[in-house]
Amino acid sequence: MSAHVLEGAEGQRRSEGIAPLYPLVYEDVVRRALVEDLGRAGDLTSDAVIPSDRRAQAVLVARKSGVVAGLDVAASAFRWLDPELAVKLTTSDGTRVGEGTILADIAGPARSLLSAERTALNFLGHLSGIATVTRGIVDSIAGSGARVVCTRKTTPGLRALEKHAVRCGGGSNHRFGLDDAVMIKDNHRLVAGGLSAAVDRVRGRVGHMVKIEVEVDTLEQLDEALALDVDVVLLDNMGPDRLREAVARIRSSGRAVVSEASGGITPETAPAIAATGVDLLSVGWITHSAPNLDVALDVTL
Amino acid sequence: MSAHVLEGAEGQRRSEGIAPLYPLVYEDVVRRALVEDLGRAGDLTSDAVIPSDRRAQAVLVARKSGVVAGLDVAASAFRWLDPELAVKLTTSDGTRVGEGTILADIAGPARSLLSAERTALNFLGHLSGIATVTRGIVDSIAGSGARVVCTRKTTPGLRALEKHAVRCGGGSNHRFGLDDAVMIKDNHRLVAGGLSAAVDRVRGRVGHMVKIEVEVDTLEQLDEALALDVDVVLLDNMGPDRLREAVARIRSSGRAVVSEASGGITPETAPAIAATGVDLLSVGWITHSAPNLDVALDVTL
Amino acid sequence: MSAHVLEGAEGQRRSEGIAPLYPLVYEDVVRRALVEDLGRAGDLTSDAVIPSDRRAQAVLVARKSGVVAGLDVAASAFRWLDPELAVKLTTSDGTRVGEGTILADIAGPARSLLSAERTALNFLGHLSGIATVTRGIVDSIAGSGARVVCTRKTTPGLRALEKHAVRCGGGSNHRFGLDDAVMIKDNHRLVAGGLSAAVDRVRGRVGHMVKIEVEVDTLEQLDEALALDVDVVLLDNMGPDRLREAVARIRSSGRAVVSEASGGITPETAPAIAATGVDLLSVGWITHSAPNLDVALDVTL
Amino acid sequence: MSAHVLEGAEGQRRSEGIAPLYPLVYEDVVRRALVEDLGRAGDLTSDAVIPSDRRAQAVLVARKSGVVAGLDVAASAFRWLDPELAVKLTTSDGTRVGEGTILADIAGPARSLLSAERTALNFLGHLSGIATVTRGIVDSIAGSGARVVCTRKTTPGLRALEKHAVRCGGGSNHRFGLDDAVMIKDNHRLVAGGLSAAVDRVRGRVGHMVKIEVEVDTLEQLDEALALDVDVVLLDNMGPDRLREAVARIRSSGRAVVSEASGGITPETAPAIAATGVDLLSVGWITHSAPNLDVALDVTL
Amino acid sequence: MSAHVLEGAEGQRRSEGIAPLYPLVYEDVVRRALVEDLGRAGDLTSDAVIPSDRRAQAVLVARKSGVVAGLDVAASAFRWLDPELAVKLTTSDGTRVGEGTILADIAGPARSLLSAERTALNFLGHLSGIATVTRGIVDSIAGSGARVVCTRKTTPGLRALEKHAVRCGGGSNHRFGLDDAVMIKDNHRLVAGGLSAAVDRVRGRVGHMVKIEVEVDTLEQLDEALALDVDVVLLDNMGPDRLREAVARIRSSGRAVVSEASGGITPETAPAIAATGVDLLSVGWITHSAPNLDVALDVTL
Amino acid sequence: MSAHVLEGAEGQRRSEGIAPLYPLVYEDVVRRALVEDLGRAGDLTSDAVIPSDRRAQAVLVARKSGVVAGLDVAASAFRWLDPELAVKLTTSDGTRVGEGTILADIAGPARSLLSAERTALNFLGHLSGIATVTRGIVDSIAGSGARVVCTRKTTPGLRALEKHAVRCGGGSNHRFGLDDAVMIKDNHRLVAGGLSAAVDRVRGRVGHMVKIEVEVDTLEQLDEALALDVDVVLLDNMGPDRLREAVARIRSSGRAVVSEASGGITPETAPAIAATGVDLLSVGWITHSAPNLDVALDVTL
Repeated sequence: MSAHVLEGAEGQRRSEGIAPLYPLVYEDVVRRALVEDLGRAGDLTSDAVIPSDRRAQAVLVARKSGVVAGLDVAASAFRWLDPELAVKLTTSDGTRVGEGTILADIAGPARSLLSAERTALNFLGHLSGIATVTRGIVDSIAGSGARVVCTRKTTPGLRALEKHAVRCGGGSNHRFGLDDAVMIKDNHRLVAGGLSAAVDRVRGRVGHMVKIEVEVDTLEQLDEALALDVDVVLLDNMGPDRLREAVARIRSSGRAVVSEASGGITPETAPAIAATGVDLLSVGWITHSAPNLDVALDVTL
Repeated sequence: MSAHVLEGAEGQRRSEGIAPLYPLVYEDVVRRALVEDLGRAGDLTSDAVIPSDRRAQAVLVARKSGVVAGLDVAASAFRWLDPELAVKLTTSDGTRVGEGTILADIAGPARSLLSAERTALNFLGHLSGIATVTRGIVDSIAGSGARVVCTRKTTPGLRALEKHAVRCGGGSNHRFGLDDAVMIKDNHRLVAGGLSAAVDRVRGRVGHMVKIEVEVDTLEQLDEALALDVDVVLLDNMGPDRLREAVARIRSSGRAVVSEASGGITPETAPAIAATGVDLLSVGWITHSAPNLDVALDVTL
Repeated sequence: MSAHVLEGAEGQRRSEGIAPLYPLVYEDVVRRALVEDLGRAGDLTSDAVIPSDRRAQAVLVARKSGVVAGLDVAASAFRWLDPELAVKLTTSDGTRVGEGTILADIAGPARSLLSAERTALNFLGHLSGIATVTRGIVDSIAGSGARVVCTRKTTPGLRALEKHAVRCGGGSNHRFGLDDAVMIKDNHRLVAGGLSAAVDRVRGRVGHMVKIEVEVDTLEQLDEALALDVDVVLLDNMGPDRLREAVARIRSSGRAVVSEASGGITPETAPAIAATGVDLLSVGWITHSAPNLDVALDVTL
Repeated sequence: MSAHVLEGAEGQRRSEGIAPLYPLVYEDVVRRALVEDLGRAGDLTSDAVIPSDRRAQAVLVARKSGVVAGLDVAASAFRWLDPELAVKLTTSDGTRVGEGTILADIAGPARSLLSAERTALNFLGHLSGIATVTRGIVDSIAGSGARVVCTRKTTPGLRALEKHAVRCGGGSNHRFGLDDAVMIKDNHRLVAGGLSAAVDRVRGRVGHMVKIEVEVDTLEQLDEALALDVDVVLLDNMGPDRLREAVARIRSSGRAVVSEASGGITPETAPAIAATGVDLLSVGWITHSAPNLDVALDVTL
Repeated sequence: MSAHVLEGAEGQRRSEGIAPLYPLVYEDVVRRALVEDLGRAGDLTSDAVIPSDRRAQAVLVARKSGVVAGLDVAASAFRWLDPELAVKLTTSDGTRVGEGTILADIAGPARSLLSAERTALNFLGHLSGIATVTRGIVDSIAGSGARVVCTRKTTPGLRALEKHAVRCGGGSNHRFGLDDAVMIKDNHRLVAGGLSAAVDRVRGRVGHMVKIEVEVDTLEQLDEALALDVDVVLLDNMGPDRLREAVARIRSSGRAVVSEASGGITPETAPAIAATGVDLLSVGWITHSAPNLDVALDVTL
Repeated sequence: MSAHVLEGAEGQRRSEGIAPLYPLVYEDVVRRALVEDLGRAGDLTSDAVIPSDRRAQAVLVARKSGVVAGLDVAASAFRWLDPELAVKLTTSDGTRVGEGTILADIAGPARSLLSAERTALNFLGHLSGIATVTRGIVDSIAGSGARVVCTRKTTPGLRALEKHAVRCGGGSNHRFGLDDAVMIKDNHRLVAGGLSAAVDRVRGRVGHMVKIEVEVDTLEQLDEALALDVDVVLLDNMGPDRLREAVARIRSSGRAVVSEASGGITPETAPAIAATGVDLLSVGWITHSAPNLDVALDVTL
């Protein structure tokens, strides 16, 4: 749909691995965002200040270095407001960009170009912020063998886009919602009257394509979980020493269970946790608290 | 709709000043968020683990201190998923809470209580995060006479809620969208061929209820703007010294123009900027980069 | 998007000042209107009577003289029903047209051309009716210096379009809804316990981009309002003599307050009211009671 | 759902014959209208001026005499904005009311009562305006045996409500859209190559529950139509003399065809047309050009 | 919109008589179906397995013989997911196809081609299943003069499409919903206190374009209905002998009433019922119980 | 929400295992179905025939024996049309019922009771049809150890409900859409250039909660799949002998891979396939071709 000019081999390779979302999946979100900004009367300023036949050219530019995510979404904001706006991406989602890197060229009617600016930037800055902090943690644990995964602690309405941004930052996705995997957390255990009772109820009640993960807070619970032959154990709020011990017990159990550490993990604490040998670090922080990446639109006439 | 037990006189007073949003305004956003999490098949875990007739009690609790925003929204997530869930708020939006403060009591069917948990927390944590950082900046400039205002750099789809969260944090709202005020920014000036040309075009093209603000990047532009008799000047990316000089020029002009500083303002830089005498600090950071406030749901049986 | 052939210099100039609405803003309204007419089974008549490969040409024509509004909306009705329908506007919104003036040429599949006819005409006739009566009042008070403004007494669902039609007729827009300006009316004053109490509460509770208007029914209330330094006073249901006195008091107050007359103003009463020196006449009649402008579609084969 | 206190036997009888619409049919229209007025930020004025715990009482009152329509719709606007608002109707749709008649009592939170006021009145005034003019024409032709029917010239998005308003005024409904009856108009005849060809194509292509009407502009076309055994003939733009002749030809044909006069019929011309003996007068004017009935909300504290 | 290569004269003729639905009517249904399958994360398999620049060619093929319906709908599923997918229909709705017949050629990005496959096939198989069984019954009663009509026993959300499929199979449509014709069934008669009372109430309460049908379960009820001069009688659950007697009574009444047989009619029982001389057989079975027609997509590279 | 009177211990036990769907998940589908039937004008018949204050009682009754599914959905259709309709379920989803079994009692306004009838029955008959045929196959293979699973061959828009109906019939669910599991089918293998290449690409591209299934058409492909350590193999279109051999190879491989047979399985062929030792039979037929279960509404006054 748009010409991607990729920045060398690394961009190419990474981009190849990050499937873009179908516009059908995010079209309503983007259109609602545009209408949220236009309101009932549209853009009072551009309509009043700019003659209707004036055309302009502009660039989307990174004001800070980071990893880009949401370029297709931002481009669609321009095009869905005004199909006469031509957007040519000059990089692609998942690419590292430096301060001042031009991300896209835009040309067309000046009014609509400026009317769509803020909506496009709000998506691009938010999603690139997520990709950037994800990439930071992923790089900081390189060599450990552990992967960074996101959670369901996402911004309401933006889950599909934020999960995509995590992939752009080199992270991996956890389940997408309540309906695509089983995760037995402490509250479930409490209500069900114990871990074994909970897992027993699950067997037979879910389909054969559904994986089962259980949260454990202690090593005793871990032992119980291992005996239940679940697919993944979530090691919640354990420090590095306890995690190391947990990993050792899992290995010695001989079971092919995946280990996932969680609980307030931040860029600062990630490397020590990854060094314990766990398979996954699940980090809610990358979706619920990532600061925006500073991106802007400069009119070049 | 729900019983608010306010925390003393300060909570009472502040709450009185923060009008709650009508549910009609956020109902679709909350319902879409619930469906985003439930997907096609609903909550596999709760449905499998918890007997259908099991009831539970739980509390919403702050894991960190901060300012609460979004309590009505979170409560509605529970109630719209299952009208049998009873939610009793024990504090109100705009209240400062300490670590461990209970924000609400919830009781009802255990399955639906846990199914709605994440959606409710995602709203509450996100909005309270915004209120908390807003309150931090507002308090840090107390005594300066300046107010903190938000921008249109909001999360797509959540603008009304985020603007409400800013008010909960003691901040004030800027325009809500492109259609309720005129803001002539650098790109408009560039396309229009100068500030005077731009303001000339606006006069007569917008209604009598619309205020006009112009962005100025230099003192020369400020002088030009003052001569044009606009309502507000946005002093963009000026350091404290230049801002002080700008404020002096505005005062000596004798015009009742409001001064607003902007440009990458953070909690660190806010006090020095407020000390220059400007009327307003517009801070995009409080909506686009505020970290989540840690809130959780604990089942109490 | 479409070729506008403007009718001479006046059409050109006026059109330049009336910004068209973005289709995104009215797309849902138009699509729902088409579906409202098509129902479940589509156009029984055209589908049965007209062979599927028959093509036709037609013109949109004014059966009466008036001012046109909604041409883009009407054109979109044809195109959204069937993208193969080509619509070429031969005039533009805001233009005065005489009886028999052709407004647009349409060509394409005969079935869909006739299926979209009524929906397109319903928009065009309704909006042009508003533009026409607005222009009538605007012209009747030419020379007075007063402007005609609309109100929130609009047809549910069509406010953005009707406000646009008012602009096409030479009128100006009042606030667009409850959220873009403050208007303290008699009911508010009554509930708040007086005008001063009401305005006091507003100060500090609304942002710096929001203007404040108060309704006054007597000269005593006007004096009170002037002392409160509001932006606009609505002089409600005052006759010409009282309005003249009100204008005199405003001028002698030395305040830059805008004066607006309201209360059942019709084309008959407008000139006398405008002659009193008020700045604005707000006329609900132009949106809630304007008769349709008679427009039609003639197939020309 | 609400207590109807009917005004004597006539109100009772008429009301009995006018089935109210299911709220499901108009809920989206009313909710969109409320959101159209509330915008992103809600009611700035009421929220700022009125304390959150203030309650109020009010009446909906007719400022002019007329026929009421849309009471349930107006009541739903209050209740959908705030379920705590109690609305008690004191009359019912289809009733004649005099100047000053109270139509409903409303009580509840003062803020939401005033926030919903304008939306409720916009529906009520618009629909009652239609009912009032319809009733005027119906009464003016009483004794002729002819009925008044509406057309598809309705306001986009409001067809179901406007057709209901016509029934409230004593009128009858024509087809509801393109899919519930066949109407062969001049443009169809032109494209199809004649009336007989058009009717021939229809036979066999539409179901057995579909009636067929054809428009005729001349007496020759009428004769052709009568020979085709259609259900209804639309006698378009014929003066009283020609209509009388048409009625005579229909009667002498011995066919049970319904005769319908149309073409710019207004309250002024209706009696003479009805006197010609036609069965129906279809009047677009009652839906596309009816002036608003003046209704208001008065706070009674 | 797409090139139809019709299979000889019969295909041509039949297709000419079956008006395609406007995409506007089914667009939302198709888009929701695509999103129902894509969920939040899109097509995990195609995105992972297939390189983003891989293109493919495929055919839609009938695995069994039958009558095709829904080709435009299926084509739109591909195009709405990805406008780069080119779909060329090689037959048209209403055509009989044999096992192995190619229905369409599709070419474009391999990922989106496979992502849309299931949604497109689900529509095409379901609608063609309906067309096929309808055609089977229609053919089995050829020569009897009776027509097959469908009912309101359709799949929720798909009525317009299923009624179209019935037409594709040679059937005819009954009313489309509750609002386009009157059908007095046994439950209505019971509540109203008899058939005459029910019909009396209807006269005068519905418009002149509405036909009236009454269900009768006995010959006595039939006599009562004939005296009431209704348009259609539904002869419910009568065996062939009783139907024959009913037809005789209708003929001897001299009234132009249409006779319709209903009540659990299946392909097996249809011929005997048609032979009784009734005008119509209404068969709920063709929409609520038709098995899928087996259609598939084969990638041809 | 409603009183369930369960039919003995078996009903109780089965019901306990079938979690009802949250109304939020199906509310839009039901409301759209009601509006699809009501159209613009509502129920012409009930409104005309039945006095507005008439109340009625009715039962939902099974006309044939089967397994019930969709009772909550049907009940919601009545309640969403008119909250005054009281629905009391007398059985529950998943229960076997005999001919004449009463499924629910309904009481309330007679008009709305009859207006909602068809929509409620359309859901109930369709979903119970699916549950019934599923139960038939499940029972026919009892003792084999194999489970019946559904596919993505569902009716557009109804997937969540149909998957629920399959559970009511004793079946188990496959993946819910394209985004909750990986299924590499023949077309993917073809495009990817072989099974190993396809699986290689998947590893690392999908999250740790996602299971991987591959379709194999031959025993050679099965061996290749087993070596790739996937979670599930789909044995497509193999006869009983080949399936038996496939099961043997899987067992001898020592891998914990699940075996699933597919390809045109019907009630007739299921037992022989289940006897081969496969773990699962996936049967598209139960969702795309299940005949309706005959259910009806009888007014009891």
